[in-house]
Amino acid sequence: MALIVQKYGGTSVADPDRIANVANRVTKGWRDGNKMVVVLSAMAGETDRLIRLSKELADPPDPRELDVLLATGEQVTVSLFSMFLRSQGLEATSLLGHQACIYTDRSYGRARIIGIDTTRIREELKKGRIVTVAGFQGVDEIGNITTLGRGGSDTTAVAVAAALKADLCEIYTDVEGIYTTDPRIYSKARLLDKISYDEMLEMASLGAKVLEIRSVGFAKQYNVPLRVRSTFSNHPGTLVCKEDAEMEAIPVSGVAFSTNEARVSITRVPDRPGIAARFFGPVAKANIVVDLIIQNTSIDGFTDLTFTVPKGDLAKTLELVGQVAKEIGAEKVLSDEHIAKVSIIGVGMRNHSGIASRMFSALADAGINIMMISTSEIKISSVIEDKYLELAVRVLHDAFGLEQARPTVQA
Amino acid sequence: MALIVQKYGGTSVADPDRIANVANRVTKGWRDGNKMVVVLSAMAGETDRLIRLSKELADPPDPRELDVLLATGEQVTVSLFSMFLRSQGLEATSLLGHQACIYTDRSYGRARIIGIDTTRIREELKKGRIVTVAGFQGVDEIGNITTLGRGGSDTTAVAVAAALKADLCEIYTDVEGIYTTDPRIYSKARLLDKISYDEMLEMASLGAKVLEIRSVGFAKQYNVPLRVRSTFSNHPGTLVCKEDAEMEAIPVSGVAFSTNEARVSITRVPDRPGIAARFFGPVAKANIVVDLIIQNTSIDGFTDLTFTVPKGDLAKTLELVGQVAKEIGAEKVLSDEHIAKVSIIGVGMRNHSGIASRMFSALADAGINIMMISTSEIKISSVIEDKYLELAVRVLHDAFGLEQARPTVQA
Repeated sequence: MALIVQKYGGTSVADPDRIANVANRVTKGWRDGNKMVVVLSAMAGETDRLIRLSKELADPPDPRELDVLLATGEQVTVSLFSMFLRSQGLEATSLLGHQACIYTDRSYGRARIIGIDTTRIREELKKGRIVTVAGFQGVDEIGNITTLGRGGSDTTAVAVAAALKADLCEIYTDVEGIYTTDPRIYSKARLLDKISYDEMLEMASLGAKVLEIRSVGFAKQYNVPLRVRSTFSNHPGTLVCKEDAEMEAIPVSGVAFSTNEARVSITRVPDRPGIAARFFGPVAKANIVVDLIIQNTSIDGFTDLTFTVPKGDLAKTLELVGQVAKEIGAEKVLSDEHIAKVSIIGVGMRNHSGIASRMFSALADAGINIMMISTSEIKISSVIEDKYLELAVRVLHDAFGLEQARPTVQA
Repeated sequence: MALIVQKYGGTSVADPDRIANVANRVTKGWRDGNKMVVVLSAMAGETDRLIRLSKELADPPDPRELDVLLATGEQVTVSLFSMFLRSQGLEATSLLGHQACIYTDRSYGRARIIGIDTTRIREELKKGRIVTVAGFQGVDEIGNITTLGRGGSDTTAVAVAAALKADLCEIYTDVEGIYTTDPRIYSKARLLDKISYDEMLEMASLGAKVLEIRSVGFAKQYNVPLRVRSTFSNHPGTLVCKEDAEMEAIPVSGVAFSTNEARVSITRVPDRPGIAARFFGPVAKANIVVDLIIQNTSIDGFTDLTFTVPKGDLAKTLELVGQVAKEIGAEKVLSDEHIAKVSIIGVGMRNHSGIASRMFSALADAGINIMMISTSEIKISSVIEDKYLELAVRVLHDAFGLEQARPTVQA
């Protein structure tokens, strides 16, 4: 008998029929003798509907009150789900964030879980009940309702699984699992049996939107085995877990990409100590996340500075750095929204040399120019012109033989 | 500076425009220097929508889970309302049942308030905030969400007002206040300046649906002055309060009526001790509320038994008493759904004789036959054929001069 936490996303509980479908899946696990905790999101579209409603009265809405409003979305699904189970003669109980004692800080709209008191959940499980926990929501130390931000139900599920020391946390979604790359971009994309937490973190942060990134960090921290799978099929999906020898034998596990960023260049910057801080200080203060940064070698006391920011923050960034550029006498500020970032990811990279050069060659052979490069221990990213993105993904997928279950590589 | 609790019903907060209208009214009270606590219902239609949704999954739905679901209705209005106030630059906070510490028993769907810890409400008021409390909902001692049943927001408002020792509890609704009778039945109906708790209790239980009856009992118990008034006008409405000398000078304050009941007669019942219990025991056990009962004088050891029950319970009642009638050898069981009950109500009745005979004469003069009569200290009810109901209301309204502000009476 195992203790299993299952999380179902908004499309999985989008209407009464789908809720019944999910209930049948949960019931199966329960009849197999497992203790079941189910974390549910709001019905697909409901959160957006509530946000629209709020904007009719307040724009921007007060963050505390918005959280009170949004928390109703999950409250509706957990009650409907539990009453369906009960109508089937099963023992079931819903618990809201405050009832499940999911304590968070008071950062409304993006609260962080700081602890879970599992007493009530355990009591209900002990009574043989299927426990349904409202995802996405928590409560601060004086009882204010908070929400964890978009994708927060994944975090709820993993945090509850960690707190209960569950044997497995299954994240049910509308795709079959984690692929080597997005199958919509490349039909040869292969569903992975398993992937390490670190690889998943890179995949998530680079634009593979299957799992909310904080939940993966949580799972890694507490070593919760995560299984990502589809609500609409019986395929076992992908296991996200600690890396093992098998994973380390594979240099590249997947190709991720993102088109969310824009590039900013400042030319002929007088190269003095502290110059980077002059630019990035105001940007950071405006809560703008800078991703890649390149500073060219100084020539004649001048350098060029290039970096990327989210496209939505470009206008604000140009305003801020334009100001500084004027003050310090840089030549000009350029920007480019037509860029994309393509990345190869794999824990095996650590043990294999020549991976970077193979990436660059593959792109070069396809006539794709690399504008910027950044690397980490298990990831190499190249910024390219966005019109070449799909080609780049295919070329890299082929170059590292990702369509085969066990690619081999000569290093 | 006063502490005022205001309650707004579902039609008053039916859409964003109306919510803004209510907010302006509340803000006015606050700007006048009062401490304001606002109790809101769900948007009109929302509770019914949620009930329909639940029935798609479970019919009947589990009572605990239904309460979790229904509680979202008020949660939506209080958050929207508070965010609107905040967007206007005012200090405001919403509190749900569990946050306002409205403790109830665990009778899901019809929970009774057993206590309110006002600490949090007082803290928020001390900060100068307008506090909005979700009506209709509470929490049991282990944190389960409960609801108080239809009209429960009135009870929330009065209970909160009692707990806070508020100076006034205003119930805003879609009518101007309490009338001498239903203006749709008789255009001469007059809006009352004030009415006693006891009169209001009789009016409410007899079918004048302006105020939820439990809330009136609560207001009487804790001596909370209640003002019933319209959200859509500036008329001060009707004050419901302790009776005073002025009220006692008026024998009849209003004419109430109901068409919700049906009459059951059992003929030639062998008149033995305990015979009434034989009939009413099973009926009571089935939670059917018997209102009027008449037992004729026994002739030759036989009697007739006549009583009224809610129309919705008639079929079940006939089944139950039919069984008993057969067992004890009564002649037959008859029923009549075409009845109505008309009542005159007034605390002044106690001090004036001849009120009953004046009622009966007025009805007789109009050719209306009285089938059954029941009286209490401040009420006289007559059951008549339902087709005469409107006529009876008018005749009695005229007979006691209710269209005049200060009717006098020769006793």
